[in-house]
Amino acid sequence: MHRIIFIAIAIISLASSESSKAQNKQPNIIIILTDDQGSVDMNCYGASDLHTPNMDALAASGVQFNQFYVAAPVCSPSRASLLTGQNPHKAGLPGNASSKEGHSGMPGEKITIAELLKDEGYQTAHIGKWHIGYTPETMPLGQGFDYSFGHMGGCIDNYSHFFYWNGPNRHDLWENGQEVWHDGEYFGDLMASKADDYIKSHKDKPFFMYYAINMPHYPLQPKGKWREHYKNMPMPRRDYAAFISTIDEYIGQLMHTLTEEGLRENTIVILQSDHGHSNETRTFGGGGSAGPYRGSKFSLFEGGIRVPSIISYPDKIKSQQHREQMAFNIDWLPTIADYCGIKTLPDGIEGKSLRKVIHKNSTSEHQQFIWKSGGSWAIRQGDWKLLGYPQDNSGKGKLNPDEDLLFLANIVRDNTEMTNLAEQYPDKTEELKAAYLKWEFANVDDIPKKRKTIQHKAVGRKIELSTRAHTKYKGHGASTLNDGKTGTRFYNDGNWLGFEGNDAEAIIDFGESIVFNEVSVGVMNNIEAWIFAPEYIEISWSANGKNYSTPIKQTVEQTNTNNNFSTRIIQIKQEDINTRFLKVKVKNIGICPDWHNGKGGPAWLFIDEIIVN
Amino acid sequence: MHRIIFIAIAIISLASSESSKAQNKQPNIIIILTDDQGSVDMNCYGASDLHTPNMDALAASGVQFNQFYVAAPVCSPSRASLLTGQNPHKAGLPGNASSKEGHSGMPGEKITIAELLKDEGYQTAHIGKWHIGYTPETMPLGQGFDYSFGHMGGCIDNYSHFFYWNGPNRHDLWENGQEVWHDGEYFGDLMASKADDYIKSHKDKPFFMYYAINMPHYPLQPKGKWREHYKNMPMPRRDYAAFISTIDEYIGQLMHTLTEEGLRENTIVILQSDHGHSNETRTFGGGGSAGPYRGSKFSLFEGGIRVPSIISYPDKIKSQQHREQMAFNIDWLPTIADYCGIKTLPDGIEGKSLRKVIHKNSTSEHQQFIWKSGGSWAIRQGDWKLLGYPQDNSGKGKLNPDEDLLFLANIVRDNTEMTNLAEQYPDKTEELKAAYLKWEFANVDDIPKKRKTIQHKAVGRKIELSTRAHTKYKGHGASTLNDGKTGTRFYNDGNWLGFEGNDAEAIIDFGESIVFNEVSVGVMNNIEAWIFAPEYIEISWSANGKNYSTPIKQTVEQTNTNNNFSTRIIQIKQEDINTRFLKVKVKNIGICPDWHNGKGGPAWLFIDEIIVN
Repeated sequence: MHRIIFIAIAIISLASSESSKAQNKQPNIIIILTDDQGSVDMNCYGASDLHTPNMDALAASGVQFNQFYVAAPVCSPSRASLLTGQNPHKAGLPGNASSKEGHSGMPGEKITIAELLKDEGYQTAHIGKWHIGYTPETMPLGQGFDYSFGHMGGCIDNYSHFFYWNGPNRHDLWENGQEVWHDGEYFGDLMASKADDYIKSHKDKPFFMYYAINMPHYPLQPKGKWREHYKNMPMPRRDYAAFISTIDEYIGQLMHTLTEEGLRENTIVILQSDHGHSNETRTFGGGGSAGPYRGSKFSLFEGGIRVPSIISYPDKIKSQQHREQMAFNIDWLPTIADYCGIKTLPDGIEGKSLRKVIHKNSTSEHQQFIWKSGGSWAIRQGDWKLLGYPQDNSGKGKLNPDEDLLFLANIVRDNTEMTNLAEQYPDKTEELKAAYLKWEFANVDDIPKKRKTIQHKAVGRKIELSTRAHTKYKGHGASTLNDGKTGTRFYNDGNWLGFEGNDAEAIIDFGESIVFNEVSVGVMNNIEAWIFAPEYIEISWSANGKNYSTPIKQTVEQTNTNNNFSTRIIQIKQEDINTRFLKVKVKNIGICPDWHNGKGGPAWLFIDEIIVN
Repeated sequence: MHRIIFIAIAIISLASSESSKAQNKQPNIIIILTDDQGSVDMNCYGASDLHTPNMDALAASGVQFNQFYVAAPVCSPSRASLLTGQNPHKAGLPGNASSKEGHSGMPGEKITIAELLKDEGYQTAHIGKWHIGYTPETMPLGQGFDYSFGHMGGCIDNYSHFFYWNGPNRHDLWENGQEVWHDGEYFGDLMASKADDYIKSHKDKPFFMYYAINMPHYPLQPKGKWREHYKNMPMPRRDYAAFISTIDEYIGQLMHTLTEEGLRENTIVILQSDHGHSNETRTFGGGGSAGPYRGSKFSLFEGGIRVPSIISYPDKIKSQQHREQMAFNIDWLPTIADYCGIKTLPDGIEGKSLRKVIHKNSTSEHQQFIWKSGGSWAIRQGDWKLLGYPQDNSGKGKLNPDEDLLFLANIVRDNTEMTNLAEQYPDKTEELKAAYLKWEFANVDDIPKKRKTIQHKAVGRKIELSTRAHTKYKGHGASTLNDGKTGTRFYNDGNWLGFEGNDAEAIIDFGESIVFNEVSVGVMNNIEAWIFAPEYIEISWSANGKNYSTPIKQTVEQTNTNNNFSTRIIQIKQEDINTRFLKVKVKNIGICPDWHNGKGGPAWLFIDEIIVN
């Protein structure tokens, strides 16, 4: 009797194991996404001051991509593009989502990797940061995840799980769409333990886990062990480095669990950062490194968009591989689909399977890629990259507002992007510009007007501001407005005067009576940055600087689209004004309108050249 | 041999015990200070929805004061006054201290209770919140404490111990002047455990412990157990209530430790809140209760300054006592000194020993008390209380800017302060006003000018603003400026127009040519609120509303004292102007000056009536 029972158990056990193997033919998939990790902040990418043995081991176990890009240098659009295989504009989330409950983000109808794999019978889990929507239909369970644990906003305190930097301070920790409390438990430990549990309890069927580690994003709260390890390093690198090693340890833990559970060989593990490192005040102004690259988070230079990225799949992908080909975060969806044998992709996928690049070391699947973020854009075509209105907060180099509005680089020959080749290669510049303009999200307004000295009648004349520009945006004083040079697309280029809540008024004294027929003022819309076109522009003139004519007013049409960005020149014509003094008043709309995020707050007005002809 | 050893040990032990008893004749002293706890937020003070058995037991074990005041309705000055026995102005800290390391607070030379008792051989400990200085000489070890554990700024996340609401987010946890890390450990538990340890290891000599519990101050992070207990209560009371019960439990723990250690009878335990409850955004707009009283934190109505306060000292003070006499937080220093037999107090102590009130139920030691905070002041004299420029953010009642600039109440007859008796008792009003003016920190400017309808030539005329007032401070539009009524001392009274960073410009159309000789504009200084007097005022006039005269300018003298508060009327005289249109321009200084906390940020300009005569 005893023997019979024993045999029966053995058979059942064998059957279970067989069945598990059968179901598990398709690989498990884990995407580990880090947050604000710099382009080279991993030993295998060149860092020498960081301890990252587990990331390095992961890289060594598969393919390390050395020219890997994200589709946006900002959190939410980068995540939206990764999950949908589409550029952020197509994914419907070109800018950051709100961190407040009740605000939506990426539209619920967008198809994510989770939805794609769920249809194939996969179990799907989200663990960590979300930040692409905070309504039921845009939270993880609405986007194809069976299981979700983490925070919905942009960042949290890692111990209290409170979103903290604009009050009231609110708790943001969710499990399967329900608020949960884990007071005092380090969020890293919580994520790691949820990931372990998930793997252990879901190993009998293939699973997809999106493991979005919220580090090294501020607040800088590494584990004490690593704070101690790096204690002699200067801030802010010290805490940042400790945070990187904190992540590294969690990656080690995850790999250990996969191995222990016998899943390591048949699991695809992808690791990448969401974009370059941050220089924000909240992260003490820096800490991360882009190595040779210029730019950081928010910039379309390499330092903002080029990230560490690794794929490991021991069953099918050889170890110790490096790939230099250009590849993108939007490629993961089709690559995963390829490995899973999914033939039909959702409409509009722009990523390409990297399988041939991985296995045959074939040429890049992309001849071209286009970015557009904030007021900047960039196009990569072959070895070349053209940036329009580039930005660089990394402090590595300056950008000349006359020369660098279009910035051309040959990334293969010089990936530092410190030398603008636009003038040296005008044909290449034109070619890339034309290619950019063919893109469905490009706009003719995106093409910088080459700044040149505009000859007009006010240049160099005496000018005074009778209202005050904000201290941060006062150019080189009133004469910024009649130096014959227009501002670039960036309000912070030193060539725009910015007025927070108040109007701009300037008086030009021509020193003698002159005749003119038109006055133009350059104005800006940058809704994300709370910058609005003025309500109206008004001119009046005076022979003696005391008694002014009845003003002539030109109202300005407002736009009310979010993410809107444009610069315009508003013109007032009047025949043969013959006078010495000209007063130009530009009326701020005053407060942000009701439809805007900044509702009720002071609206910004930015103006550049006052052109008189 | 064994017997001999035994006896020797017994003798040593006895000697030690004797010596301990001898040293311990003086009582131990513990002051428990809670943070933003509302006037009646304790069962024994009338709350019926809160669970506060330990606070109630403490009250029952000694004396419960039912008319107990703090010397300031704001955190830092209230703490400074408690610790020095002086009003906050005398203590050198009339407003809040900075939460940034390196900023000082209450001057190091001020004598605290800790310093007083240390000189008497006491061991002295600070546990919890500090917030009265963040430099070595103004931190606890610089102010007489042998031991200190807690945070130096205004508030922290209770799990990460990060100050979080303006970046970069920084860690703020200190032990004996050294930064310490207790990642994830609930600050309440940490404090409680430090308090326990301190008592157990310092019981052989008398000790003074200042136990400043940082609750229920935001961020609202009560213990999960109490969150659960109150889960059916509406927010924000729910989290606030849970926080109060969290405190209550710690008080229970402390009392238990005292009892266990045999110290309960000979320990003076004082409990009070630092001021009334908060209505700030960061605490979800409220949660606390002032019961019958109007006002809250920041207000000098009873709800801002009347707090629960208890003293328990089983060895000497009878249980089950209530005292209705007026008493103050500055009384604790002399009261403690009295119980400790300290005859000589530091110079300038304004508090009085409450010993006779406690033991003999004698009349209040105070016939008079004076508060001054922000732009408000108040004087309590006998049963009467007069407030100058009262403020009330609690929403319980309105204040009429014409009638309520001086607000008289008889606290004994009606402590709700809902009826202003100033007009009914003009002699009493005058008496208290005169008494206030005798105070060394009073200023003639503090006396409200009775708002009355000012007859002047601009009243009711057509007026237009050509710059925009901030949406929060736009009064009833441009006509606020010529309604014949001046603003009160409060920028938010609806009678001031506020301009954030920008200038004010108004044009009055008299409808006909009129003659006038002077134009005056009311302006405000409120440095703490980033409100500055203008750079200058300028008038120009016009017969036709188009051509204006050469402007006449009056520059305005600036002050650069912090905590400065004043309103002024700036006048421009010009003989016999005969015109129809008057343009008045008031020039904002634009940005906060270098010496100011808001350095570089937009300066506010507030103006009230434009008086034309």
